[in-house]
Amino acid sequence: MSHTPPTSPSIAVCPGSYDPITNGHLDVIARAAHVFDEVVVAVVNLSIRKSKPLFDIDERLGFITDATAHLGNVRAEPFDVLVVEFARRIGARAIVKGLRAISDFEYEFEMNQLNRIQAPDVDTFYVMASPQYSFLSSSGVKELATFGGTIDGLVPPRVATRLAEELSRRT
Amino acid sequence: MSHTPPTSPSIAVCPGSYDPITNGHLDVIARAAHVFDEVVVAVVNLSIRKSKPLFDIDERLGFITDATAHLGNVRAEPFDVLVVEFARRIGARAIVKGLRAISDFEYEFEMNQLNRIQAPDVDTFYVMASPQYSFLSSSGVKELATFGGTIDGLVPPRVATRLAEELSRRT
Amino acid sequence: MSHTPPTSPSIAVCPGSYDPITNGHLDVIARAAHVFDEVVVAVVNLSIRKSKPLFDIDERLGFITDATAHLGNVRAEPFDVLVVEFARRIGARAIVKGLRAISDFEYEFEMNQLNRIQAPDVDTFYVMASPQYSFLSSSGVKELATFGGTIDGLVPPRVATRLAEELSRRT
Amino acid sequence: MSHTPPTSPSIAVCPGSYDPITNGHLDVIARAAHVFDEVVVAVVNLSIRKSKPLFDIDERLGFITDATAHLGNVRAEPFDVLVVEFARRIGARAIVKGLRAISDFEYEFEMNQLNRIQAPDVDTFYVMASPQYSFLSSSGVKELATFGGTIDGLVPPRVATRLAEELSRRT
Amino acid sequence: MSHTPPTSPSIAVCPGSYDPITNGHLDVIARAAHVFDEVVVAVVNLSIRKSKPLFDIDERLGFITDATAHLGNVRAEPFDVLVVEFARRIGARAIVKGLRAISDFEYEFEMNQLNRIQAPDVDTFYVMASPQYSFLSSSGVKELATFGGTIDGLVPPRVATRLAEELSRRT
Amino acid sequence: MSHTPPTSPSIAVCPGSYDPITNGHLDVIARAAHVFDEVVVAVVNLSIRKSKPLFDIDERLGFITDATAHLGNVRAEPFDVLVVEFARRIGARAIVKGLRAISDFEYEFEMNQLNRIQAPDVDTFYVMASPQYSFLSSSGVKELATFGGTIDGLVPPRVATRLAEELSRRT
Repeated sequence: MSHTPPTSPSIAVCPGSYDPITNGHLDVIARAAHVFDEVVVAVVNLSIRKSKPLFDIDERLGFITDATAHLGNVRAEPFDVLVVEFARRIGARAIVKGLRAISDFEYEFEMNQLNRIQAPDVDTFYVMASPQYSFLSSSGVKELATFGGTIDGLVPPRVATRLAEELSRRT
Repeated sequence: MSHTPPTSPSIAVCPGSYDPITNGHLDVIARAAHVFDEVVVAVVNLSIRKSKPLFDIDERLGFITDATAHLGNVRAEPFDVLVVEFARRIGARAIVKGLRAISDFEYEFEMNQLNRIQAPDVDTFYVMASPQYSFLSSSGVKELATFGGTIDGLVPPRVATRLAEELSRRT
Repeated sequence: MSHTPPTSPSIAVCPGSYDPITNGHLDVIARAAHVFDEVVVAVVNLSIRKSKPLFDIDERLGFITDATAHLGNVRAEPFDVLVVEFARRIGARAIVKGLRAISDFEYEFEMNQLNRIQAPDVDTFYVMASPQYSFLSSSGVKELATFGGTIDGLVPPRVATRLAEELSRRT
Repeated sequence: MSHTPPTSPSIAVCPGSYDPITNGHLDVIARAAHVFDEVVVAVVNLSIRKSKPLFDIDERLGFITDATAHLGNVRAEPFDVLVVEFARRIGARAIVKGLRAISDFEYEFEMNQLNRIQAPDVDTFYVMASPQYSFLSSSGVKELATFGGTIDGLVPPRVATRLAEELSRRT
Repeated sequence: MSHTPPTSPSIAVCPGSYDPITNGHLDVIARAAHVFDEVVVAVVNLSIRKSKPLFDIDERLGFITDATAHLGNVRAEPFDVLVVEFARRIGARAIVKGLRAISDFEYEFEMNQLNRIQAPDVDTFYVMASPQYSFLSSSGVKELATFGGTIDGLVPPRVATRLAEELSRRT
Repeated sequence: MSHTPPTSPSIAVCPGSYDPITNGHLDVIARAAHVFDEVVVAVVNLSIRKSKPLFDIDERLGFITDATAHLGNVRAEPFDVLVVEFARRIGARAIVKGLRAISDFEYEFEMNQLNRIQAPDVDTFYVMASPQYSFLSSSGVKELATFGGTIDGLVPPRVATRLAEELSRRT
């Protein structure tokens, strides 16, 4: 690792699929925005994905822009390269991600080491999920919505509305 | 969490007992120094400790100052209050710590939630230990030195010398 | 959580896919039957499942009825709604599930929190798997049977016979 | 395991040191009280303990009685034998405990198997801690109080007052 | 377990998909070769696999033979039965596998118990991955290569070349 | 790691405190004795221990010799140096230990890496505990015996008798 002192402004990348963004994601993004000058929420946009996302890239970006409007230093952007490569291109030295559970920890440990080989000058910083979001994932929310369960308080209102439209199959 | 945009300079606190500092600690401190404007290595100095540290507070601070001399934006300071209270006093919004293993994760998750109740405006950011330091702890190093094992490459040279003096009981 | 005192009879739900029931499932069901007045083994029966079960809903229910015949207070029923919703419909305040390993714990922790939001009046109680069943899963048993391995003692005899018929591809 | 059908009333034991009781303990006790007819909060009272508790047995029992007064079917009792032996003496078939994290899970798994050998007719049922209490332990609360941290919302008001008296060493 | 004393020569089996072999696999194989007289690297070759491997069985065997040429007591063989059955057929009493992380541990614990029921006379011995390979998996390497990331030092040179040919989709 | 082919006879070291030996230890020792030519059960004998063992070194060695008499290739020896140093002195290339749970895994991972730095030519091989012993530890057995619990089937008969004499405080 080089020891070049950081230069202003400090930029952090919060990468993910965000299909869709949850209140847990927003918690992590707000923490990053509290410490870094600029936060770029980077949304995976791959043509060679294994499974099609529920919401297309534009709608996922729109949900984020909408839900982070009150934070002055956050913007959303799509990316289709390695995360560390994306970070480098926009001049970010830090990636910020949330950790909810042991399984997250193990996955992130593996990713972290692989990323360091690719880009030793970009570091990943993790924040612990708030207890009320420690059980929350996009896939869990989608499964709940599929069965007509209540998702209020788990995702932003606009996302809740669209999820209900897309997924609810019981009335 | 308030959404006040961050103000310069950004300060990070790296707290610990550092009894003594290891190369794993140095790895975490260097990562923090790469992203934050200033890094304060905060060394626990309690009169009501359960067990006496091997090295006194001055020697522990000296080891750190010595080992981080090549990093221009790092300094060591003692503290004897809650970490979040110390962070607040010096104007730091971020605490940076290393995560080596699951047991670290569980302990830190508990600490993190307790700290947030005390100081919601100070966040802790974790970095994953480098693989070559993922097994390293001050207590492990002390145990090895006790049995006359090799600790070169695990701690700074000056620490290795002093540990050998204090602990080696076989020649 | 409301503090209404419990009313008799106490009913517990043991939900699962049971494709097929194993001796580990039976261990959990018997523990529940030892403490609760009535135990309803609830078998998932979804038309929108991702993958087709090996045994259809009637055969899975039959295996359970057969294997729990010696327990006077157990019956099997299909369900196709959220588990907590099913529990509520039949007047059960408790769901009983087995925990085998860390990965179970993490998954159940997530489910548990999501379920509480849906139905705070229905609680899930976990029992630890007996050591001799702590490694046992329906999918593991199916994989063993596929390769012609021995599954005696892992599932009820009738299930073993049917698995051999369905899966063994080597003679 | 014998399959004798349960007899009324159903009794559950919630064992622990409760030095002191936290809001996380109360959450577990309330869940047990919602499903079982009677709940006995069993407080460890050993003369051969390794370390002296902060509060003596009478004060610990008093805190519990006070904090569970709104629950009609809960009482506190001291015990100084194996938990399963205590359960048997009072006619309880179920022990109810909370699970907060992986480390709890591993410890409880070990205890559970040892207990079954002692008393196969007494089963332990676990409930998952609510997210807002998943990080809470008596020792963590005591450590916080020692440093003058805020413990409101983590323990009952009466306990908070007494902890401040006993532990706060900074003013 | 029978207590027949071991007979020479001692043979160990290192089973896996090896799609493709990584430097982490090689580390495990070399450790086995240091202690056992003969090491047979057993490569899964199933016609009823769920997903087609990236490299066919002959190329996977070739990669291994090539990368272990400097070890005099290692050879590669395909297998399509239960691992313990394969071990028995070639007279091996030991299976040797690497453990990288908690998730490996849990999976292996389950497999281990199932295997013992099949073949109590064949034991599995685990070695801990070296830190520099503790994050390494065939699937992780393939994902990196897909995005054009650097995989030098993670797999043998010949494998790196072939992976680049097969997977790289960006230039 | 050097790739010198192994020389006969193969020797394995099973290190521990064995205070006292349990049936879980015996399970691990028997597995090692099934694969290696000679097994040396190495018993820690330190003068600088933090806490005094319950049984002195001679009685602990005697318990092991007694309980492994039916295995022709096992002997017990005390040691007071680093385990890898002891292994080297007796010409052993392999250390064999049991893994019961995640917490074992994490501790052993740390020890393993430290040991490799000391002695890269000595490898540690782990075997998974049998399910019926996966919850068993010397300290758990001692705690049970202290409260007058049943320990038959958990330790060899001679150990059970002596534990009852030393620890039982209730009659």
